[in-house]
Amino acid sequence: MEYKDQQLTEEKVFKDPVHRYIHVRDRVIWDLIAAPEFQRLRRVKQLGTTNLTFHGAEHSRFNHSLGVYEIVRRIMMNFQDRVNWDNEDRLLCLCAALLHDLGHGPFSHSFEKVFKLDHEKFTQRIILEETTVNDILNKVSPNFAQKVADVIAKTYPDKLVVSLISSQIDADRMDYLQRDAYFTGVSYGHFDMERILRVMRPMDDQVVIKSTGMHAVEDYIMSRYQMYWQVYFHPVTRSAEVILSKIFQRAKYLYEDDSYTFKLKPTHFISFFSGGVDLQDYLKIDEMIVYYYFQLWQEENDEILADLCERFINRRLFKYVEYNPDPQINAGMELYQLFNDAGINPDYYLVVDSSSDLPYDFYRPGEEEERLPIHLLMPDGGLKELSRHSDIVESISGKKRTDHKLYFPKDRIQEIEDETLKQRIIDILYG
Amino acid sequence: MEYKDQQLTEEKVFKDPVHRYIHVRDRVIWDLIAAPEFQRLRRVKQLGTTNLTFHGAEHSRFNHSLGVYEIVRRIMMNFQDRVNWDNEDRLLCLCAALLHDLGHGPFSHSFEKVFKLDHEKFTQRIILEETTVNDILNKVSPNFAQKVADVIAKTYPDKLVVSLISSQIDADRMDYLQRDAYFTGVSYGHFDMERILRVMRPMDDQVVIKSTGMHAVEDYIMSRYQMYWQVYFHPVTRSAEVILSKIFQRAKYLYEDDSYTFKLKPTHFISFFSGGVDLQDYLKIDEMIVYYYFQLWQEENDEILADLCERFINRRLFKYVEYNPDPQINAGMELYQLFNDAGINPDYYLVVDSSSDLPYDFYRPGEEEERLPIHLLMPDGGLKELSRHSDIVESISGKKRTDHKLYFPKDRIQEIEDETLKQRIIDILYG
Amino acid sequence: MEYKDQQLTEEKVFKDPVHRYIHVRDRVIWDLIAAPEFQRLRRVKQLGTTNLTFHGAEHSRFNHSLGVYEIVRRIMMNFQDRVNWDNEDRLLCLCAALLHDLGHGPFSHSFEKVFKLDHEKFTQRIILEETTVNDILNKVSPNFAQKVADVIAKTYPDKLVVSLISSQIDADRMDYLQRDAYFTGVSYGHFDMERILRVMRPMDDQVVIKSTGMHAVEDYIMSRYQMYWQVYFHPVTRSAEVILSKIFQRAKYLYEDDSYTFKLKPTHFISFFSGGVDLQDYLKIDEMIVYYYFQLWQEENDEILADLCERFINRRLFKYVEYNPDPQINAGMELYQLFNDAGINPDYYLVVDSSSDLPYDFYRPGEEEERLPIHLLMPDGGLKELSRHSDIVESISGKKRTDHKLYFPKDRIQEIEDETLKQRIIDILYG
Amino acid sequence: MEYKDQQLTEEKVFKDPVHRYIHVRDRVIWDLIAAPEFQRLRRVKQLGTTNLTFHGAEHSRFNHSLGVYEIVRRIMMNFQDRVNWDNEDRLLCLCAALLHDLGHGPFSHSFEKVFKLDHEKFTQRIILEETTVNDILNKVSPNFAQKVADVIAKTYPDKLVVSLISSQIDADRMDYLQRDAYFTGVSYGHFDMERILRVMRPMDDQVVIKSTGMHAVEDYIMSRYQMYWQVYFHPVTRSAEVILSKIFQRAKYLYEDDSYTFKLKPTHFISFFSGGVDLQDYLKIDEMIVYYYFQLWQEENDEILADLCERFINRRLFKYVEYNPDPQINAGMELYQLFNDAGINPDYYLVVDSSSDLPYDFYRPGEEEERLPIHLLMPDGGLKELSRHSDIVESISGKKRTDHKLYFPKDRIQEIEDETLKQRIIDILYG
Repeated sequence: MEYKDQQLTEEKVFKDPVHRYIHVRDRVIWDLIAAPEFQRLRRVKQLGTTNLTFHGAEHSRFNHSLGVYEIVRRIMMNFQDRVNWDNEDRLLCLCAALLHDLGHGPFSHSFEKVFKLDHEKFTQRIILEETTVNDILNKVSPNFAQKVADVIAKTYPDKLVVSLISSQIDADRMDYLQRDAYFTGVSYGHFDMERILRVMRPMDDQVVIKSTGMHAVEDYIMSRYQMYWQVYFHPVTRSAEVILSKIFQRAKYLYEDDSYTFKLKPTHFISFFSGGVDLQDYLKIDEMIVYYYFQLWQEENDEILADLCERFINRRLFKYVEYNPDPQINAGMELYQLFNDAGINPDYYLVVDSSSDLPYDFYRPGEEEERLPIHLLMPDGGLKELSRHSDIVESISGKKRTDHKLYFPKDRIQEIEDETLKQRIIDILYG
Repeated sequence: MEYKDQQLTEEKVFKDPVHRYIHVRDRVIWDLIAAPEFQRLRRVKQLGTTNLTFHGAEHSRFNHSLGVYEIVRRIMMNFQDRVNWDNEDRLLCLCAALLHDLGHGPFSHSFEKVFKLDHEKFTQRIILEETTVNDILNKVSPNFAQKVADVIAKTYPDKLVVSLISSQIDADRMDYLQRDAYFTGVSYGHFDMERILRVMRPMDDQVVIKSTGMHAVEDYIMSRYQMYWQVYFHPVTRSAEVILSKIFQRAKYLYEDDSYTFKLKPTHFISFFSGGVDLQDYLKIDEMIVYYYFQLWQEENDEILADLCERFINRRLFKYVEYNPDPQINAGMELYQLFNDAGINPDYYLVVDSSSDLPYDFYRPGEEEERLPIHLLMPDGGLKELSRHSDIVESISGKKRTDHKLYFPKDRIQEIEDETLKQRIIDILYG
Repeated sequence: MEYKDQQLTEEKVFKDPVHRYIHVRDRVIWDLIAAPEFQRLRRVKQLGTTNLTFHGAEHSRFNHSLGVYEIVRRIMMNFQDRVNWDNEDRLLCLCAALLHDLGHGPFSHSFEKVFKLDHEKFTQRIILEETTVNDILNKVSPNFAQKVADVIAKTYPDKLVVSLISSQIDADRMDYLQRDAYFTGVSYGHFDMERILRVMRPMDDQVVIKSTGMHAVEDYIMSRYQMYWQVYFHPVTRSAEVILSKIFQRAKYLYEDDSYTFKLKPTHFISFFSGGVDLQDYLKIDEMIVYYYFQLWQEENDEILADLCERFINRRLFKYVEYNPDPQINAGMELYQLFNDAGINPDYYLVVDSSSDLPYDFYRPGEEEERLPIHLLMPDGGLKELSRHSDIVESISGKKRTDHKLYFPKDRIQEIEDETLKQRIIDILYG
Repeated sequence: MEYKDQQLTEEKVFKDPVHRYIHVRDRVIWDLIAAPEFQRLRRVKQLGTTNLTFHGAEHSRFNHSLGVYEIVRRIMMNFQDRVNWDNEDRLLCLCAALLHDLGHGPFSHSFEKVFKLDHEKFTQRIILEETTVNDILNKVSPNFAQKVADVIAKTYPDKLVVSLISSQIDADRMDYLQRDAYFTGVSYGHFDMERILRVMRPMDDQVVIKSTGMHAVEDYIMSRYQMYWQVYFHPVTRSAEVILSKIFQRAKYLYEDDSYTFKLKPTHFISFFSGGVDLQDYLKIDEMIVYYYFQLWQEENDEILADLCERFINRRLFKYVEYNPDPQINAGMELYQLFNDAGINPDYYLVVDSSSDLPYDFYRPGEEEERLPIHLLMPDGGLKELSRHSDIVESISGKKRTDHKLYFPKDRIQEIEDETLKQRIIDILYG
């Protein structure tokens, strides 16, 4: 029997707290899960530094990837009488779901920003270059790896397939909202996925929702909104992210400074510092490795690097105040100067962080992140864009909400000896 | 106000998936949680290698320690009208609960076995020697650190206090059963803790249970039984543990072998290899560090060490068969020889692992792990040992169940070229 | 000891699926629960005919009343350090919570509409006239019954007390949303009540919410919105309500028609038909009694009454179409005539039902149901009305949504023999 | 298309709190659910008087019947590749599951005992005699109704079909344990049904369980054990049952007493009193009707009937003490006499109630309730009886536990004026 049609002699299951069980029948899927590049996702947390705010949030991207696979598997079962897909099409959806986050590095957000990387490019490379994952996909059919990569890159011609894992109501989002809610323990993030799966209908180039299921979708949109502001953009988590970014930035700076010598050569980071990251370097770095360096760097001679690492490891985070960039720009400039005067390097210790989310959007071609809007399938067979039918969604549709905060080490300010300087800083911050 | 009586201006809460919220009012507790030695528990998983079997089980000992604290806090609230404890007594219970696992190292079980360490001794040392935790406890009262250490060591004179965190139905067990069930996602591990807390009554030297709550306790005992055999002793988890032990054993062996030079000097491990572990060495090692070395050791020259590390990192675990030591001893000896013949070092690749659990025990003085039995408080005011009143508990009481398995790399056996040898091995293993 | 200060020797608990346990310590509360007028609430369903749509929704008003009591009890525990209430004040809140729904009759909505009754008036009467409940309240203090009645009637001077059980975020709503979600099994209706209770703060004349808890309140408002449209206004439930009203209306009509004689004299209904309901009549009727009559009336000589009762008992409900009163008024008038022509009495078999809900409202004095808006307590100590701070709430605030449906027996239409007439009716209905 | 093969144009679902959704595709099932005899089950509580102990337990047999149907539906989906059943076989299983409790009358237990009825006989009659249900089943095939009746009566030749709804681990038990736990709110009753369904395997004449699923089955057996003693045999529930039986007994006695005339003729009960119950009489009585009579009978002239009814309606139940029939027989006889002396009719006011449960049984042919034991399917393909493989099950296997309690109205005893008599009674009861 061809590799792509091989079934396990007995269905395998993974016990999963969110979906109860994750079911695997296809040998291809089983082999992909066992591949080292996929196992590596166990060492990358789904929510980066969120566990410093919500101590339950230790779950890995391995978790989430299995979850997205399982949701797509269930959608496909519901679709089987409604679409004309052969076994390779089916596998394509499942593999794309399973592998969509394969290129995530440690603490993706900060890591990518400082080193100017893009995890989506690495997902492509892991799928297409010389890896165990690529070997497995090649055994399915000659251009199968490319197809999987195209689906993940959203360039695959069949947009229905693409929409399963990237639209405004895709398997990716449905998994992470529920999973992140479960592990953090918050009461948001719950919606009736079983109902949504039942009302999903495949159309030419997208998945649409039967209008009878609109309220479950409203609930999903609201869950997403709440999770963004309550969990993902939690100010304490962002404080840890700020420190993380500053550690990477400082380490890179020191590496580029010929006069500085690391006590321990930062072998794993060198290609990231110098900009020539090859795939093997990338696959070798994970959050365990990063933590190792941070622990060692606590003892580096550079005070800033050592201090930031010690803060991150021991969770001595920055405090924050609300910050409104426009009116407060002068205050910001003065603070920068005052920090300098106080000997607290403002490039590392005075940081504005902005978060913004667009909870749901109707279609505006040409804009960044132009995800298709959600369409309802009306009883008369027509389609209607969600926000035109739902008051709640209409009310938050297209409205980008942005939040700015100014982060700084309050302890350092309290230690300033010049009382006038100290008081002036405090007045600006808490005025 | 004295340090021990200081309250936070506003109660702080941690969102916890198991207990919903963990409440902190005392400054002492708040400071202890922020101490580096306590934060370190974030980098030690509660269940070691179990996440390789149950992918949700990524939760840390930090999680669990907060949970035990919270349960004791709730018990104390229920007890406040029934015991005559002053504020220091109350803090003593809370601190002992919070800190009881402070000395756990990475992958405790295997780590301690190979390096002949005892995490309980390190818990004592962290509390009593020069640490941030010790500084905080000293501020409560001069001998407070010693008291906390004594409660955890079970040598504290007030046995009622001791029994809160170590008896057959203590806060420690109640937390981990529920927490491990939650994160693994298994359906065992649930029992009505709220009811148990309501029927707990403080007696002279122990906590007893009002007999009306007996069924909730039965449920707890059964949960424990199921969790042991379904989760804690899961054969796949034990396979990972076996490999872990063998990695530590091999690394130590190579370190002691003067002819071998590590590519990377195993700095963090040296004191463990040589046996002179001081507290600072111990506090520096955590699971992040261990993973870092395992990843590097995949590229060591020693084939055994490199292979075992690669297996652990990529989850290419050993397979197993049931093994009954007594009748099968000869088969075992023959296998050992056959593995040698096949060039598969049996000291590392043929491992018997035994697990055993005593689900509940009545009191047998002088025996190992002599925990007090659970006593029911009868309507007439008398006490009755649980197994005398409950059929179910009686049926499993004092019965130690042991399970032996033989672990080996099936892939290596399949690669043996000498067909006769290979067949003989397979016959013995699966015959 | 005075009656009002008497505590039960041992706290009593009721196992409750929503709040886990309901705790009773006060003798007054224990006695009120045992009173026949309170036990009667076991025979009145919380959601009337909703169980014909959601089969789990069989829960009684007894359930809900205990739940509201429990929530108020927990709020009071949180408030105890923040308000200066004596024991009688505390009991006043608990009693008002427990008894607030005491006057509900069977299938309140339809029953009250047809017979022009007001359950709130009966709540007052049960508390103030000669009942066991009144006897108990009188033992607390001479004017205690009146105080309880005033709190429920919202005329009590201390508005803080009133707001606990009737505001836009009161114990009543918090209980029924969660309880109705639990018993119907829908996934809406969940919000983090524990968090809301923690951020409630007593102010002079209302309970306000610390602004840090705003998102939990948003979730609550959304839950309410979803429960209204998904559960409370479910079109199938409303179909059963329509039939119910028509049964009451027809029975009253027949009673007033001297030429008609009931096979069984409708003893329990006579005072309702004739308008002179005294308290004893009212207390004797419950849903068991109503069902008894409906079953008997299936065999009445009057075809309409018998048919409507048979439909209700056997759940052969009316079908419905959307109906927009303004543009469709002519269609409505024609339908009325056509039904008459077809021999289907439109007064009973062609019914417009309208539902409308105002999910949240800022304060507009003088309007019906003028509940206080929800106020947030800002970090600076000021108050801010919720919809000014929350985008989501702002978006649905003050917007009344109304839904009109036209109900009719589809089976009867299908049986019309005159094909032209039948087709014309179908065209108008489904056009 | 033949009736039996007709599918609904769109799958219908019922929202169910326990199984989330109940799915219906077959027209036959849809029609059966709409039949008046099935709708009648809405008016019979699943747990009789248990709601007087656990106020959430208001759920109906309609609920449970849908649940059993849903479980069998899921089992059949898992079995479809493993058994050779045609569509009629499939429908047979589903119909038998749905209808298995069709003959339950109001408060079955007491009702049947007093009137010497057997609900199983009425289930047979409703299926086989002139009813809507029978009409529907006849349309499937000529002998289909008989087949359904045979499956429910356990006389159907294919024992595999029978075992789905009556064995020691059948759909009936799996539904009621979970459902009763859900509605009472107790923490027992939970087990991993999804896992059990996955490890069920059809064999020649029974469903067996793959041995890898043994622990889930242990959990199920323990849940059953706990539910029996914590919920089903709760002494307060039994107190209500005792009163219920005595009401029926007294009413029958009065009916047979020619000198007594009921104020209201007990029309619905007459055939039950006189022993000639026909099917139409039986179908007309439900718990609503019974409650109607109890409320009226509170005003009967017979003091015993009026008192017992008032107690039941207002939940003024009997108290109880433990009672051991053998040693206490003399005490019992003395009490009987003393009650007589005190003017408290012991035939109605002094009642021994015994409950006993056999949590699991291996096979003992010829004994009452001889349900097949549970067999495990071992890895070698052999079968092994559960209790031989599971320590826990072995420990409770075949052990019948019986509990006797003596019920009486404590209030009446306290009102006895003869102090010596009163004290003697109290001494015997509480001595």
